Amino acid sequence: MKLNGTSIIGYSRGAASKSTFHAFNPATGEDLETAFYKAEPAEIERACKLAECAFLAYRRIRPEKRGDFLRAIADEIEALGDTLLERYVAESGLPAGRAQGERGRTCGQLRLFADHISQPGWDRSESEEAQPDRRPLPKPATRIRHIGIGPVVVFGPSNFPLAFDVAGGDTASALAAGCPVIVKAHSSHPGTSELVGQAIVKAAQACGMPDGVFSLIFGDGRGAGTALVEHPSIKAVGFTGSEGAGRALFNLAAARAEPIPVFAEMSSINPVLLFSEKLAEDPDGLASGLTGSVTLGVGQFCTNPGLILVSKSAASESFVDGLAKQLKAVEEAPMLDKGVKASYVDGLDRLASAGRTEELLKADGMVGCGAVPALYKTSVEAFLSNTDLWTEVFGPVTLIVECEKDSQFNEVLYKLGGQLTVSFFATDGDVSSNASTLQLLETKAGRVIQNGWPTGVEVCATMVHGGPYPATTDGRFTSVGLRAIDRFLRPVCYQDLTEAARNTIL
Amino acid sequence: MKLNGTSIIGYSRGAASKSTFHAFNPATGEDLETAFYKAEPAEIERACKLAECAFLAYRRIRPEKRGDFLRAIADEIEALGDTLLERYVAESGLPAGRAQGERGRTCGQLRLFADHISQPGWDRSESEEAQPDRRPLPKPATRIRHIGIGPVVVFGPSNFPLAFDVAGGDTASALAAGCPVIVKAHSSHPGTSELVGQAIVKAAQACGMPDGVFSLIFGDGRGAGTALVEHPSIKAVGFTGSEGAGRALFNLAAARAEPIPVFAEMSSINPVLLFSEKLAEDPDGLASGLTGSVTLGVGQFCTNPGLILVSKSAASESFVDGLAKQLKAVEEAPMLDKGVKASYVDGLDRLASAGRTEELLKADGMVGCGAVPALYKTSVEAFLSNTDLWTEVFGPVTLIVECEKDSQFNEVLYKLGGQLTVSFFATDGDVSSNASTLQLLETKAGRVIQNGWPTGVEVCATMVHGGPYPATTDGRFTSVGLRAIDRFLRPVCYQDLTEAARNTIL
Repeated sequence: MKLNGTSIIGYSRGAASKSTFHAFNPATGEDLETAFYKAEPAEIERACKLAECAFLAYRRIRPEKRGDFLRAIADEIEALGDTLLERYVAESGLPAGRAQGERGRTCGQLRLFADHISQPGWDRSESEEAQPDRRPLPKPATRIRHIGIGPVVVFGPSNFPLAFDVAGGDTASALAAGCPVIVKAHSSHPGTSELVGQAIVKAAQACGMPDGVFSLIFGDGRGAGTALVEHPSIKAVGFTGSEGAGRALFNLAAARAEPIPVFAEMSSINPVLLFSEKLAEDPDGLASGLTGSVTLGVGQFCTNPGLILVSKSAASESFVDGLAKQLKAVEEAPMLDKGVKASYVDGLDRLASAGRTEELLKADGMVGCGAVPALYKTSVEAFLSNTDLWTEVFGPVTLIVECEKDSQFNEVLYKLGGQLTVSFFATDGDVSSNASTLQLLETKAGRVIQNGWPTGVEVCATMVHGGPYPATTDGRFTSVGLRAIDRFLRPVCYQDLTEAARNTIL
Repeated sequence: MKLNGTSIIGYSRGAASKSTFHAFNPATGEDLETAFYKAEPAEIERACKLAECAFLAYRRIRPEKRGDFLRAIADEIEALGDTLLERYVAESGLPAGRAQGERGRTCGQLRLFADHISQPGWDRSESEEAQPDRRPLPKPATRIRHIGIGPVVVFGPSNFPLAFDVAGGDTASALAAGCPVIVKAHSSHPGTSELVGQAIVKAAQACGMPDGVFSLIFGDGRGAGTALVEHPSIKAVGFTGSEGAGRALFNLAAARAEPIPVFAEMSSINPVLLFSEKLAEDPDGLASGLTGSVTLGVGQFCTNPGLILVSKSAASESFVDGLAKQLKAVEEAPMLDKGVKASYVDGLDRLASAGRTEELLKADGMVGCGAVPALYKTSVEAFLSNTDLWTEVFGPVTLIVECEKDSQFNEVLYKLGGQLTVSFFATDGDVSSNASTLQLLETKAGRVIQNGWPTGVEVCATMVHGGPYPATTDGRFTSVGLRAIDRFLRPVCYQDLTEAARNTIL
């Protein structure tokens, strides 16, 4: 497939407007060729109206048929072959292996949702029989099931051009739920977005889905996003990105005449607790595991471990030394774009200038979008008194908080806002000495991990990628795994339907 | 138990502040004796802090024990005997039979949630085994479950002093979920509220629950409610009442540094579609059924049928005549308070002056809080062009919209906002002639009822009392029935926990 740079509005294309932008290759520092045309307000309006009409038809399509559509999307994405992988690499600066892995995850995710909605019970349906002779009042026959909420707008992030974007988890779960989707393309990888968007349209047409079940909007300012979130035809929003942008969308949605839910996955420092007995067992192994987790994808993961709690000991010193050495050995690699790189540099400055932090590894000599790891250390007292240290720095850096004893981990955790993950490394002995700390973990995060690192989120039935604010705007849901579909469903009770009505309505 | 009029702050009582108010008996038009003391800001602060501390302990109490607590509350409410029923009648103007029925519903609801959380699976838990040998990456062992979200503030309505109030559905489901509750008492029935609040405290103490698991705040202005919703210790809000008040609380909650969910059940006109074949079968029976539903509880139900769609025919004329006659025969009865009565009178004026509406039964000669039914009729064209007719009038009144043919029902429905219920009366013949109208119903409401009236909401596993905005602020949930507990839960994933950690954390 070839890129033409215009928005996809249902089964037609947007106009070649006057306002254009180009993708940027962070590895070469150069713009890529194709011009992308920012959607006009009338095109956004048309995409929303089409989605509203498409919803009435799409919601009535049997789940098995929607599943076929999801599988066809996966097939079409795979059929893009190297064209997709090459564009992904050029636009993200990430290696080809990562592109391949992420494509596998994306297609696997689509097929997982397809299988899920083909199983009875996916819509949480349940029936109760009538009791016509009950006193004082008869009991009606009632049946509950969950149905699609309506058209959904999806904003993908810069760091997962496939798995969290155009055909990523938000889109897959919304389409599975019976909701049309409009994606606002991320301006850092418009070509990848257009290729995947074309694949979705091809699959939709082949499967006989209604025009408007999917649209893709280009636009690099705030205007297009605002127009989409404020449009009355839109009933929910999925977002992955920064806390500032996520909160702005949340505020827009809450101020509508009809407020709608915004599922924004935003900000997390993913604390890791290294309890003393476990740390003493293998400080070098832990240092090397952490190095891998901190630098994976040039640290550009929402589950990047940004805060490490240890108690001062010979083992902790050996761990910290080993960590600094291993991080230092990691080669420079390009970050996703200039904005991400600039914000990494700002974040490092914030850590360095926070006062009472020790710079164990300085990120020196970085060129263009390139980044190298950094490492900071501070005391528990300094950490507790300085809120500048409590927020995310997006990139390959972590902060060690050195405590006097493991029981202080509690105090640090108590101060922190909501997190996507909390990890702890503990022996059975550590577990029994630290019960109250361990019991606090689930109140702070959507996922609690023992003896493992937070990066790498399994796409499965029992995953939670979510957590209390500001990890997300709504900690009652997950954006990864099968239960991500819950975000786009609402319950309906059917009371005393005759067989004819059941056959017509359900 | 005796009333003392001060707020209940955990296991202690508030001060006798300078600012007081009295309950009002709508049947006699006189104030009732006890003075109620508005809570001071420091008392509200203390209740919130206590709830935050109580949460840490209460959330760890086994569900079976929380169930015992809920059952003890029901026992204590029943032990209040006639004291409670008499106060309920004096404060609401509702008959003793209704008081008794509502007490039964309330206690039944508490016991239903107690049983529910004693069953495995209530927390939607599910496990997946590890696959250590999976390629390219091993699969971790993951387990999901839902845990309590944190302290919940509940605002009850004036029209259900028991079932939707201090120990009503919001409180029962939040306590079942493991969340402490602070109730802002409704100023129209403070005595009923205090009696039930005392019963909850007695049960909490007897069951060894932590201090602060429950508080009850008096205050008749907006100040107390605002302070509660804005307090950082509070993590969710349940509300039943008007659209204006519900939206104001939603806006407050959305503007917090950490936004929290508000489950406001607000406004619904509960359309009823009388398809022609079914209407022709028994116009008199339908008129008498509707009379009962419109006037139940002096029309003060959120599920009151406020909009009736018919197609003009001999049967519809006989139905409308019969309805007017039967409504006229209903005796005057007191509404809940002066504010509710004044808003009923305003609403009737709105219907009468909307233009092109016919006043089939005028509510004449009402004295004090007393109300009699009213009936209005309009054409489908007039209805569609006049938004004044699309919103709720709280009280014993309904509006007939006369269409030319059943296929026009669709146009009316399409214009309406979200509803708690949509009812339709239809034969199998009606069903097959009106499939597309019937398929639209679930997009408009939380409950779809065939051949039955919307009043009377069964408390069961498969009920939905909710619906798209403005029926509620969050159509993804129900406030009645077992799934009401979903509002106060959030999911957590536990990854690779050892047996020792599982036993400590779960």
